[in-house]
Amino acid sequence: MRKFKVTFLPDGKDIEVEENTTLMQAAGKAGVYVNTICGGKGVCGKCRVQVINGKAKPDKHAIALLTKEEIDDSFVLACQTKVQDNLEVVIPPESRLEAEQILLTDSFVSEAASVESAHFDPLVQKIYMELQEPSNEDNIADSDRIIRELKRRTEHITYERTLGCLKGLNSKLRNSSWKVTATIARQNNGWKILEVEAGDTNDNNYGLAIDIGTTTVVAQLLHLKSGKVIGGEGTHNLQAQYGEDVISRIAFACGKEQGLQELHKSIVKNINDLIKSLTNKHSVDPEDITAIVAAGNTTMIHLLLGLIPCSIRLGPYVPTTHSFPQIKAGEIDIDIHPEGILESISDVASYVGGDIVSGILACGLADKPEIKALIDIGTNGEIALGNNDWIVCCSASAGPAFEGGGVSSGMRATQGAIQKIEIKDGRVQYWTIQKSKPRGICGSGIIDCIYELVKNGIIDQQGHFNMSTKNERIIEKDGDPQFIVAFPDETESGENITFKESDISNLIRSKGAVFAAIKSLTDYVGIAFNKIDTFFVAGGFGNYLNIFKSISIGLLPDIDQKKIQFVGNSSLIGARMALLSKTKFEYTAEIANMMTNIELSTYIPYMDEYMASLFLPHTDKKLFPSVDYWQS
Amino acid sequence: MRKFKVTFLPDGKDIEVEENTTLMQAAGKAGVYVNTICGGKGVCGKCRVQVINGKAKPDKHAIALLTKEEIDDSFVLACQTKVQDNLEVVIPPESRLEAEQILLTDSFVSEAASVESAHFDPLVQKIYMELQEPSNEDNIADSDRIIRELKRRTEHITYERTLGCLKGLNSKLRNSSWKVTATIARQNNGWKILEVEAGDTNDNNYGLAIDIGTTTVVAQLLHLKSGKVIGGEGTHNLQAQYGEDVISRIAFACGKEQGLQELHKSIVKNINDLIKSLTNKHSVDPEDITAIVAAGNTTMIHLLLGLIPCSIRLGPYVPTTHSFPQIKAGEIDIDIHPEGILESISDVASYVGGDIVSGILACGLADKPEIKALIDIGTNGEIALGNNDWIVCCSASAGPAFEGGGVSSGMRATQGAIQKIEIKDGRVQYWTIQKSKPRGICGSGIIDCIYELVKNGIIDQQGHFNMSTKNERIIEKDGDPQFIVAFPDETESGENITFKESDISNLIRSKGAVFAAIKSLTDYVGIAFNKIDTFFVAGGFGNYLNIFKSISIGLLPDIDQKKIQFVGNSSLIGARMALLSKTKFEYTAEIANMMTNIELSTYIPYMDEYMASLFLPHTDKKLFPSVDYWQS
Repeated sequence: MRKFKVTFLPDGKDIEVEENTTLMQAAGKAGVYVNTICGGKGVCGKCRVQVINGKAKPDKHAIALLTKEEIDDSFVLACQTKVQDNLEVVIPPESRLEAEQILLTDSFVSEAASVESAHFDPLVQKIYMELQEPSNEDNIADSDRIIRELKRRTEHITYERTLGCLKGLNSKLRNSSWKVTATIARQNNGWKILEVEAGDTNDNNYGLAIDIGTTTVVAQLLHLKSGKVIGGEGTHNLQAQYGEDVISRIAFACGKEQGLQELHKSIVKNINDLIKSLTNKHSVDPEDITAIVAAGNTTMIHLLLGLIPCSIRLGPYVPTTHSFPQIKAGEIDIDIHPEGILESISDVASYVGGDIVSGILACGLADKPEIKALIDIGTNGEIALGNNDWIVCCSASAGPAFEGGGVSSGMRATQGAIQKIEIKDGRVQYWTIQKSKPRGICGSGIIDCIYELVKNGIIDQQGHFNMSTKNERIIEKDGDPQFIVAFPDETESGENITFKESDISNLIRSKGAVFAAIKSLTDYVGIAFNKIDTFFVAGGFGNYLNIFKSISIGLLPDIDQKKIQFVGNSSLIGARMALLSKTKFEYTAEIANMMTNIELSTYIPYMDEYMASLFLPHTDKKLFPSVDYWQS
Repeated sequence: MRKFKVTFLPDGKDIEVEENTTLMQAAGKAGVYVNTICGGKGVCGKCRVQVINGKAKPDKHAIALLTKEEIDDSFVLACQTKVQDNLEVVIPPESRLEAEQILLTDSFVSEAASVESAHFDPLVQKIYMELQEPSNEDNIADSDRIIRELKRRTEHITYERTLGCLKGLNSKLRNSSWKVTATIARQNNGWKILEVEAGDTNDNNYGLAIDIGTTTVVAQLLHLKSGKVIGGEGTHNLQAQYGEDVISRIAFACGKEQGLQELHKSIVKNINDLIKSLTNKHSVDPEDITAIVAAGNTTMIHLLLGLIPCSIRLGPYVPTTHSFPQIKAGEIDIDIHPEGILESISDVASYVGGDIVSGILACGLADKPEIKALIDIGTNGEIALGNNDWIVCCSASAGPAFEGGGVSSGMRATQGAIQKIEIKDGRVQYWTIQKSKPRGICGSGIIDCIYELVKNGIIDQQGHFNMSTKNERIIEKDGDPQFIVAFPDETESGENITFKESDISNLIRSKGAVFAAIKSLTDYVGIAFNKIDTFFVAGGFGNYLNIFKSISIGLLPDIDQKKIQFVGNSSLIGARMALLSKTKFEYTAEIANMMTNIELSTYIPYMDEYMASLFLPHTDKKLFPSVDYWQS
């Protein structure tokens, strides 16, 4: 098979690939992240790239999606273009995903989210000990000597020997004058000894908390002795090249030989890349990482462990398992300590995953009698409601609009995203992440924009443009009215950043799905919104979320704003808490067990609630008394 | 490096080896077993072979040990001769070890040794189930559905998922119309699901009970569904090429780089060979073997698991561990089901191993209030004494005399071994195993021979020949008087089989060590011999052991013969019971825990007892009232 070299600019990274590899795949192999929303189906147009050297023909999708000028300038879609020549390809700013710019929104520290010293009991611990040499009077076996000392030093009752801890033990003890460090790991019903090392190595013990999102994968490196966060890093889920959302990933895993294997390997590569980068940056030996806790939705964890996810998308939505075995990370080729463990947070249902359970842990939702709610707005919107006695939950197909998907100028909360917008007297003011030139609009900006448009009368409550309004920012293109948020001279790409009527229509469906789910859940348990003590909102909106505007567009219920708290990546926070505390980790299984999932697709009242929510803010005026633009 | 071909006759097996490989190593690689007692040090002369083609020089050991005629006939020592030419080598009958001829002495069935149906609960079980397809009303996860059914069908409370059982589960269930077989294995604190297979495979479930002796390795293949013994097979421990006894094996493991690894690989090869042979013979798929229980002395199990045994031979005699973790057999490259488990029976002390614990299980020694004793006479003599309340035990360095080692014509209880001898009116009558021409004398024959020699006045009670006796069978060679048991025309080798004064001297020390140990143990707990309800004797004597003669030479105490029971390989029987019963397996750990080891090397009264025992039968007449040759 012929091979060609592809060079990606501006990074200057090149890669040799086989003929007919797509540019998207080539970019993935070169470690260059290209945007995609549709998962490589050629329908979103987000992966527009410019071929400046070598031959590459625009396919039918490109012809449909790109302008004539763009095609004349050799723009193609990376996901549809097959490499048949040596190429030099420019990835324009708006098509670029920059791994290092995924924000770790981890400012949220609730009472629950900090692991108190009483519960500090990491899943893997290293214990240094100076042992008495055996004598005729005290001639117990070497491993018994270690276990005796462990029992003296810890409150743990049982210790199981592993082959790993017994191998070479004889020499390690005697060559180190009986001064050794035992690495112990929590397991079901006790602890096991993973390894014994000569000398004092108890400081060299690290763990990884990982949130595996459908879109992004975020990891934190923790020092397990002190519990301190050493560093954090995020990256785009490499599986995106096979499909943007959970459903298309499952379709890929189940529709193609080796599909599951490819997705599995992608996420393993993601994690290994994060490990490599974090350990490099912080001068940590990857073999000193002894434990990983992963939180993710049901499909993501199935793919991580190489489990067939096919039934998850078919009624009655049955996954292989809700609780996952502890495995050696090495079993799935994750490069940490050879005996290092990987735990995955239990899930509740096919569409209520361990990320939500982890989030509930982080928010303390299940800790006290006060009723609290958690809403995680990602590709799906998952909602949990309850207290220490009961929890109900559900998942709404919100779509990725609030993560920037399905919105023409939408983007994730990375550098250059407009995260805050105000419109006053016709003047538009916006704020971007890292104060860069704007590249698009992220979730929080999108919410602001809708609010400002309706508040300023630019659109009506159904999301239609008032074309009678005189405003240089309102234009119409291909029959789709749109609002110019940023003009070409302001933007990184030199093109308009606009907000289209079709975008607004998508967003109204999204926010409607989320609100209807919240409403269905509170109605199901017979609780008024104002009986909810705290309303936690998680998701990749960015660092900033305007609660008032979120209420005003009908995304969140109209309750006392002080009760609404934006918590960022609560799944990551929960995973970290579980890593640092055996009690908290075991608590996640209890939380998952006590949660009742309401399957909205078969829950009749939901559809009515959804229909009633397709309005800004809602068709039922009484539900949103504090909204200030309310007309009629 | 140059390579040469070595052909071994009469088998006709050939092998290509690197220059300077020893003939002993070459034979091992070719699967031909050559006798050795000294473990390849060139001092026992048991590995005498004849080179009939190609050049091979006798080394200094051969010159010292072999006759001039033998050297002229190109005899060499296999352990000392390095291959430096293409060779054809004849292994004479007395130097041959024939693997297929190791006897499985398994006629002993005590009340305890049969696993009653109440305790039939194999360590790994296969359970066939026909499940209901999921519905909206019953949409639990696939693995939960299997666990729910397992809980309905078994009394087991907890089931842990393994990655192995979850992988591919989705397809297996759906492609088999929800008719599957779960393989479950006992683990600490519950059970785990090793695998789920499509369809009904519950009949294809086998286990292996193995006794790993220093000299021989014996395995039984069991059908785990029915508990039936499918077949048994024994082989010589391949480690013998590195040393005959435990001490020389430890010396090899600890004295040489890769020594431990070579010993470990040898025993793994032994087990894999036995598996291959048993599964071939009985048309069983090796992957249908799901469980192994191994019993062996402390050193053998350390070597099996690859654990450093070095401290076992150094005071205070501390091994790495007394209780061994369950491992995947595949972890140490044993070729059974990839998820198949291997359990090793717990030991008590460096010289009281799991083979004794297993034997105690088989004899029911720990079951009832009656006091019983078990004496296992192998390379060491291990003795246990006790009841359901207490057990004391010890190990005496008996040497391998009763296994045929250290005795010039001694051999193991295999084909051609003289196992029974009578001398009447100067006439010698003997019986060989499988009625073959005699090749040597095994343990039971040795006991008979000593008894008959002293009874007939041929030797005195110190083991010295009465040279005044006129008997054509008494000759003297190199100052060592000897008794001809079989003349050249009767034997397979065409040479005398004799019993030398130096052999008798070794045997008196051996039997003295064993008896002194028994006496020390009963004195330690303050119990007279006649308070012992049953006295179980285990060991590789052959199928036949004359209890009266064993008492009469002072090996066993002089008690009512009906109380003495020969039990053959009680270690194997116990391993089989543990394999077939979770309760019995867990009981072995309890037995090991309740046993108190008396370290004879530091127990002062033992040496006096030993000195008093160096007489036939004993210096204390009162201890052996029923001995008929007693002179004063």
